[in-house]
Amino acid sequence: MNIRHTLSVALGARSYPIVIGDGLLDGGYDLVQHIRGRHCMIVSNETVAPLYLDALAACLSGARVESVVLPDGEAHKTLETMSRVLDALVAARAARDVAVVALGGGVVGDIAGFAAASYMRGVDFFQIPTTLLAQVDSSVGGKTGVNHPAGKNLIGAFHQPRGVLIDTQTLTSLPQRELAAGLAEVIKYGAIVDAGFFAWLETHIDDLVGRDPDLLAQAIARSCELKAEVVSEDEREAGRRAILNFGHTFGHAIERCQGYGEWLHGEAVAAGMVMAARLSGLPEADVDRLSDLLRRAGLPVTPPAIGGDRLLDAMGLDKKVLKNRLRFVLLEQLGRAFVSSDYDADRLERLLAAADA
Amino acid sequence: MNIRHTLSVALGARSYPIVIGDGLLDGGYDLVQHIRGRHCMIVSNETVAPLYLDALAACLSGARVESVVLPDGEAHKTLETMSRVLDALVAARAARDVAVVALGGGVVGDIAGFAAASYMRGVDFFQIPTTLLAQVDSSVGGKTGVNHPAGKNLIGAFHQPRGVLIDTQTLTSLPQRELAAGLAEVIKYGAIVDAGFFAWLETHIDDLVGRDPDLLAQAIARSCELKAEVVSEDEREAGRRAILNFGHTFGHAIERCQGYGEWLHGEAVAAGMVMAARLSGLPEADVDRLSDLLRRAGLPVTPPAIGGDRLLDAMGLDKKVLKNRLRFVLLEQLGRAFVSSDYDADRLERLLAAADA
Repeated sequence: MNIRHTLSVALGARSYPIVIGDGLLDGGYDLVQHIRGRHCMIVSNETVAPLYLDALAACLSGARVESVVLPDGEAHKTLETMSRVLDALVAARAARDVAVVALGGGVVGDIAGFAAASYMRGVDFFQIPTTLLAQVDSSVGGKTGVNHPAGKNLIGAFHQPRGVLIDTQTLTSLPQRELAAGLAEVIKYGAIVDAGFFAWLETHIDDLVGRDPDLLAQAIARSCELKAEVVSEDEREAGRRAILNFGHTFGHAIERCQGYGEWLHGEAVAAGMVMAARLSGLPEADVDRLSDLLRRAGLPVTPPAIGGDRLLDAMGLDKKVLKNRLRFVLLEQLGRAFVSSDYDADRLERLLAAADA
Repeated sequence: MNIRHTLSVALGARSYPIVIGDGLLDGGYDLVQHIRGRHCMIVSNETVAPLYLDALAACLSGARVESVVLPDGEAHKTLETMSRVLDALVAARAARDVAVVALGGGVVGDIAGFAAASYMRGVDFFQIPTTLLAQVDSSVGGKTGVNHPAGKNLIGAFHQPRGVLIDTQTLTSLPQRELAAGLAEVIKYGAIVDAGFFAWLETHIDDLVGRDPDLLAQAIARSCELKAEVVSEDEREAGRRAILNFGHTFGHAIERCQGYGEWLHGEAVAAGMVMAARLSGLPEADVDRLSDLLRRAGLPVTPPAIGGDRLLDAMGLDKKVLKNRLRFVLLEQLGRAFVSSDYDADRLERLLAAADA
């Protein structure tokens, strides 16, 4: 076991460490030292639990360990499923010093985090994300929650974890398409705040796709660091944090048009980032650098043929008043993003036409 | 309209005002100035809504006002009922700047507050408590939540209101028994932290029971002030805040033995406070002062004949090991409380015997 990187997310009294390493769950990391009450409730899902639950429980020997295994998938990210975690905590007579440990992807983390925020008005929470997307995205920032039939993530809480443990070994079991979807967010960090990291990704993207554990750990560490910097400045999402949504206005519209689950979130964001880069009026050479990098990661770089008008509609825009109606995250250059509603409406219209069949 | 008292609950950036007056809901108070998004969702119940909902809506003219009316009673303080408030917010397409306004007693406030904490991970929340208990207790402190079949208030959040509006006129419609139950908590504040206030209550208790609006406003203001002082020192209930539970260890046990709803919470706490005062070893004259004051307020001062052993059991105690097993809030003298597990076990046993039929 080899601890490669330890970062700290700086949030004053609620600061927490992110430990990134290869094989942390193979018994080498003493997680139990951080579990104040020596009692934990692992929350996982049907896909991940058979792979890593036993290993995690072994890491926690010395503590009382219980678990609740949820069905897999975004469709189950509901108040009802969250309530199952609460029921499990109640059934275990968990006290205020219990720790909820999320083992899985973003959905598991979001549900478990919201349950931890709500049980007795807040108990300790640890994240062990097992997908690249969760490792570089949802494990930093403190957002937890569930979906409402009317909208994603409408119900939830800000609840910072006490710690995040990222074992890059868990990526060996991740489907290639999900690895690529995670890389979309990694590339995003380069595009919005770190041109040097973007260039580093251009150098190493083939090895990252090939799952080189050293390079993956470096990419994850840098992504978490960059997200943590942005989040630390704006924990409650008043302003700057919005740049993390680069590519997401188009991406969400693509997901909504297709029905969720057709493209993975990261795939929709990939195509959305290229659209947002074009809307920014970046030099064509820079747009090409972005789309080449995404393509090499195995990601789509143009929207599916769902029709420009439908896309417009899904963004809540009216064709007659395109201008200044939405706030987009735009790029001043590769590595520097800003938020603005002052975009070129003609350019937006041409971009959307590209989505016509 | 006459604003009698305005207090501030000091919680740094989350500080908020409590405005106390006679007839605030009769159109004299401009609540809408505090509603940032000019959109509010009033949460009330079937008993209170017919009495005050129209008046409140009139206070909010200029804002978009919607409401959700919940069934009345502690039995409905569940995640399902809270989910109805969330559904109403979603149906109203409420944005991040919506304000949730609780109009009712403690149950309405707890449910509405938890919904406000959870909708979009936290929106503005205002309290308009209409029972004396809610006015002097749940409107200060930021605790929100719902019950789980296995226990009260197991699920919730700390979510401070943006403001609390207390119209003493609403007390005119309160049943006498509920008024008395509220006075139990008022008397509690005197007993635990303010001997002068306790003496003031001894002077004025008959007029308070007679609902003198001036004196009620003064008693509410002082109670909120005292609770706010304790809470400000210990927002997350790590230590000192526990003294607010004076009388509650016995009180909760009484409620549990009788089944909730037989005695009102304030009634059980009243009898519990006398028991706790005796357990403290206060001079008999001081115990008498406390029990006389409670009796004059219309409250019980001895436990019901439910049996000492059952009471013991409901407190989670074993008859063979009575000593040092629980932390009680005890009185050093009238007006000064402390928390200790160093109590006289023989005295506890004699006290419990008083509950034998």
